Amino acid sequence: MKKGATVEEVRSVVERATSLGLKTQLNLGTDKTIIALLGGHTGQIATEVFAVLPSVETVTRIMKPYKLVSREFKSEDSVITVKGVPIGGKRVIVMAGPCAVETKEQLFEAAQAVKAAGASVLRGGAFKPRTSPFSFQGLGQEGLELLASARHEFNMPVVTEVVDPHDVSLVARYADILQVGSRNMQNFALLSAIGKCECPVVLKRGFACTVTEWLTAADYLLAGGNNQVILCERGIRTFEDSTRFSLDISSIPVIKRFSHLPVIVDPSHAAGHHAIVPALAKAAVAAGADGLLIEVHPNPKEALIDGLQALTPTDFSKLMDELRQIAKSIGRTI
Amino acid sequence: MKKGATVEEVRSVVERATSLGLKTQLNLGTDKTIIALLGGHTGQIATEVFAVLPSVETVTRIMKPYKLVSREFKSEDSVITVKGVPIGGKRVIVMAGPCAVETKEQLFEAAQAVKAAGASVLRGGAFKPRTSPFSFQGLGQEGLELLASARHEFNMPVVTEVVDPHDVSLVARYADILQVGSRNMQNFALLSAIGKCECPVVLKRGFACTVTEWLTAADYLLAGGNNQVILCERGIRTFEDSTRFSLDISSIPVIKRFSHLPVIVDPSHAAGHHAIVPALAKAAVAAGADGLLIEVHPNPKEALIDGLQALTPTDFSKLMDELRQIAKSIGRTI
Amino acid sequence: MKKGATVEEVRSVVERATSLGLKTQLNLGTDKTIIALLGGHTGQIATEVFAVLPSVETVTRIMKPYKLVSREFKSEDSVITVKGVPIGGKRVIVMAGPCAVETKEQLFEAAQAVKAAGASVLRGGAFKPRTSPFSFQGLGQEGLELLASARHEFNMPVVTEVVDPHDVSLVARYADILQVGSRNMQNFALLSAIGKCECPVVLKRGFACTVTEWLTAADYLLAGGNNQVILCERGIRTFEDSTRFSLDISSIPVIKRFSHLPVIVDPSHAAGHHAIVPALAKAAVAAGADGLLIEVHPNPKEALIDGLQALTPTDFSKLMDELRQIAKSIGRTI
Amino acid sequence: MKKGATVEEVRSVVERATSLGLKTQLNLGTDKTIIALLGGHTGQIATEVFAVLPSVETVTRIMKPYKLVSREFKSEDSVITVKGVPIGGKRVIVMAGPCAVETKEQLFEAAQAVKAAGASVLRGGAFKPRTSPFSFQGLGQEGLELLASARHEFNMPVVTEVVDPHDVSLVARYADILQVGSRNMQNFALLSAIGKCECPVVLKRGFACTVTEWLTAADYLLAGGNNQVILCERGIRTFEDSTRFSLDISSIPVIKRFSHLPVIVDPSHAAGHHAIVPALAKAAVAAGADGLLIEVHPNPKEALIDGLQALTPTDFSKLMDELRQIAKSIGRTI
Repeated sequence: MKKGATVEEVRSVVERATSLGLKTQLNLGTDKTIIALLGGHTGQIATEVFAVLPSVETVTRIMKPYKLVSREFKSEDSVITVKGVPIGGKRVIVMAGPCAVETKEQLFEAAQAVKAAGASVLRGGAFKPRTSPFSFQGLGQEGLELLASARHEFNMPVVTEVVDPHDVSLVARYADILQVGSRNMQNFALLSAIGKCECPVVLKRGFACTVTEWLTAADYLLAGGNNQVILCERGIRTFEDSTRFSLDISSIPVIKRFSHLPVIVDPSHAAGHHAIVPALAKAAVAAGADGLLIEVHPNPKEALIDGLQALTPTDFSKLMDELRQIAKSIGRTI
Repeated sequence: MKKGATVEEVRSVVERATSLGLKTQLNLGTDKTIIALLGGHTGQIATEVFAVLPSVETVTRIMKPYKLVSREFKSEDSVITVKGVPIGGKRVIVMAGPCAVETKEQLFEAAQAVKAAGASVLRGGAFKPRTSPFSFQGLGQEGLELLASARHEFNMPVVTEVVDPHDVSLVARYADILQVGSRNMQNFALLSAIGKCECPVVLKRGFACTVTEWLTAADYLLAGGNNQVILCERGIRTFEDSTRFSLDISSIPVIKRFSHLPVIVDPSHAAGHHAIVPALAKAAVAAGADGLLIEVHPNPKEALIDGLQALTPTDFSKLMDELRQIAKSIGRTI
Repeated sequence: MKKGATVEEVRSVVERATSLGLKTQLNLGTDKTIIALLGGHTGQIATEVFAVLPSVETVTRIMKPYKLVSREFKSEDSVITVKGVPIGGKRVIVMAGPCAVETKEQLFEAAQAVKAAGASVLRGGAFKPRTSPFSFQGLGQEGLELLASARHEFNMPVVTEVVDPHDVSLVARYADILQVGSRNMQNFALLSAIGKCECPVVLKRGFACTVTEWLTAADYLLAGGNNQVILCERGIRTFEDSTRFSLDISSIPVIKRFSHLPVIVDPSHAAGHHAIVPALAKAAVAAGADGLLIEVHPNPKEALIDGLQALTPTDFSKLMDELRQIAKSIGRTI
Repeated sequence: MKKGATVEEVRSVVERATSLGLKTQLNLGTDKTIIALLGGHTGQIATEVFAVLPSVETVTRIMKPYKLVSREFKSEDSVITVKGVPIGGKRVIVMAGPCAVETKEQLFEAAQAVKAAGASVLRGGAFKPRTSPFSFQGLGQEGLELLASARHEFNMPVVTEVVDPHDVSLVARYADILQVGSRNMQNFALLSAIGKCECPVVLKRGFACTVTEWLTAADYLLAGGNNQVILCERGIRTFEDSTRFSLDISSIPVIKRFSHLPVIVDPSHAAGHHAIVPALAKAAVAAGADGLLIEVHPNPKEALIDGLQALTPTDFSKLMDELRQIAKSIGRTI
């Protein structure tokens, strides 16, 4: 409360809290009165409910706003198993493939290469959200069908992005893991639709969202009934411009501390340049990531999208060898 | 090109450019070779197309990636007229009302108050994207119907948010102006759907998007056929935490310099606190904004959402008086 | 405290607090125990003192870390009078002149022009901190002497930057107001030296510092004995690149709310481009700034530093006329 | 040039360039004229020199503003040897010790522990820049003397911070490596003083400075004559608040690509919490850092500064074992 708050003003806060099922405790400081609000559901009550009351100076949240994804709700690590591939366990899982599905030849060549190098999951985009309306927007359903045939041919689970809430069941028919892109992390219409389906989902971090907001978005999915959520750090927007985004490597130990969900890293979108990708991939594994999502293109120079950040099959294979050594050095496998 | 690039490598860049319909010009510097790529459509070609070629050091874009929204495409200011209210002209337009439609009483009381104080457009949310799955999500279609009856009762055009691409035509039936929220600025499925409709639209700036990205998102709408676009600055995410977002006041003169579209300002979401709103509103008008989008609630203490940033009818009325003086001092009206 | 904290662990926090002269109050929540720490000097105790103790989950500061600059310490506005010019009162004070003192002709021409247009204080840099070692670093003491002669000739107080703690008394001999640049806001050796002198000081905000850190830096000066402090907002670093820095216009009402010190705005460094400066200057006055610090150069095309952001005398004179109208519209003068 | 620029305006740019010793080449595009400016010293010419000329739209820098620190200037890695410890070679160097020197017992206990665990350099602060004027500011010269005696006793080189340009030679008498703190990275008075001395220096990255600005600040030191510069990444300021700063792990491969200088990482200041430090330290080694700067305190709970981020000797020893495994996995040693 502000200095000089009256007893009536203090009482109105207490009454508001009581009406919401909270208990209160008063701290009559030398300078100011502080009112503690206590209850198991404070995370679901907006701080503004109290901030608007007369003579309230600030309302500070002590408890986190998320619940189901927290370590306190579930202390042991969640492991999500997709077609026999366990994500979140001792093995570091590598998902790799082209940014966008372009042709059958391109996709199959990429799939063959990443499988040979040790990747467990094939990635590839059919619906591509693009910042310019004049850019290639993906093959759509045709791309999904190509992904499904590659899944069959190479016996690998497939992850692909969904951008429209009304496409969720369509995409879930073709893919093993749905992906929510960074620009859609707070697209709540999309999150609600995915929360109702049974397909595992990779939830990419919004490039301008805090870890707390990211976990709260994941709470949307779990609250909807879908608890097969894999978090994916892919870089945040900062003032630094030597990379496309700044990979927030600290988010990995922070997530591990506060949540039971597995977390993987996409070094390709963070770096924006293939020459920077290997260092970030190695750092991610050393920091404790449960997996990686890496762009590999059979011929980056001809890629329709994001060729600059794609590794060639040769570079990817070399990187996998290095990652295996690092995984081993921390007691994990790839 | 990198130091030591070979003639063949230079030639491969030139050939790639030629194949895309671009002209090239070589600058053989003392240290490095620089290749200029020239053509009217460079904005639509990704820089990566060249960045992936051997010995290319960096590709720097000189032209902007947007086109239809630019001053070069159309030099005179666009004025968008909604039910007789011209947005982008000499008059500063104030849109005001509650964050969320809660009840008929609340909405009508707000509408009556903002109209009396001089607002031209009524705002109110029926679909509310919320960061927590446990928060109030808006009244949905019932809210739209309340808005339509307030529109009729008070003879004011209405602006309201649309969050799902499949709701565009529904919302356009009830509202005079659609609103794309900050978290949806790069929701391209939504932008495509709105581009195809004929309803004016307020495009809020993504809180982590540059002015260039914002204008490029607006290009989506114009490219789709909808050129009744009103830009809305509402604060960006920075390290500063004394306000909810940092209002990027500079974006107003920057937009005016590079685009013909009208730009308005939402001081309420930027500030996050009613005590800060008036100063931001006054600054916006002085900086040249074409309008304001302000939250007003008949009883902020009882608001279901964002009560802390809402003005009371009394405070709003006082602010309008002050804004009238400022508008007059720069040769505009309210 | 973490869930499961023991009574001994709670007791060790209480004992630590008691040893530091704090009172404590326990909140035994359903999930967690929260310990309130109470006392008039909590702002001076690092949160880490408690955060390191066993089973402490987080330590959240309710009180601000600054003291002497706060409204609670002194409720009425501070007015700093420099040679008869009151800063922080009803009149908006304009400080203008070239970024760097280059020659007598340049400085006198600028001084004559800004005085004629209505500026009250002459600005000009003698010591220039430059990001590149190969750039012009200012005239040093020769520049100070030129400033002193312009001060005499035009009967205007002079503000100039000091960069080295050992130059403080030298610069104070020539100038009426010292300036601490943005990159030096947390140069505590410099702040300590200035705190001991009696010269008024403009403390520019560090471009990556929060308002709270800025006020805490000002506390250094007041704690040292110098309470003639004028705060100066000059833009913060964000991801936005259409302006050099992002002017944090919200900081003006925030400072007015929490501190009694006057606050002025430098639109020139924020904008980085003369075409953007007038809109920012007008916004600053409308938002409640007590003054402006504007770069004016008789011939920006020939300026040795920052010519792009300098106004010509003609543009400055036109801007002053506009600012007078805005000041009048909010009940102030210029 | 802007659309519609006249031949005279183009000519005035060419003449300005010629007067500065640059060559020019014109690109007469379909929409716009682009003028390329060529010469070996463009990095030292401000873009504004041209941006202020009539009808110039933008000036885009293709070459980097730094020179002596670049890979192009010197292609092989620089190795800086301090008392037999080579920094920048195959071995990863660990510098460890307390944030601040408090007492002889504390310093010697820390030194003994970090040496036993395998650290090569002892760190400890005597001059502490603090954000609050009421906090412990370090022991000053007494702290330097304690460091010198620990250096002698444990036969380890010592790194310590210098904050005032006039203290450089004093600190260089006691220490083997000077440290420039993050808040002083652009304190050019300090950089100039250190550039003139012969002592190796750790240049911490400004927490709001780009990699380019950091390398340009390093250029100050090399231009002054001191080329024994070790860069230190310590986290940048972003909107994320779950860690104190966001460690920019990408800066390591970026620095390696553009500069020949060694780069080390301070995970302690970035994390702000001891529980996060080990993951960041491991990531840094995996990403290719040449060393680490880690805070270790014999009794973090009693530390006068930053105890929350300090490791205990036991935790540090465990971390060193893990780091040795990671270094081995990438073909390096510790």
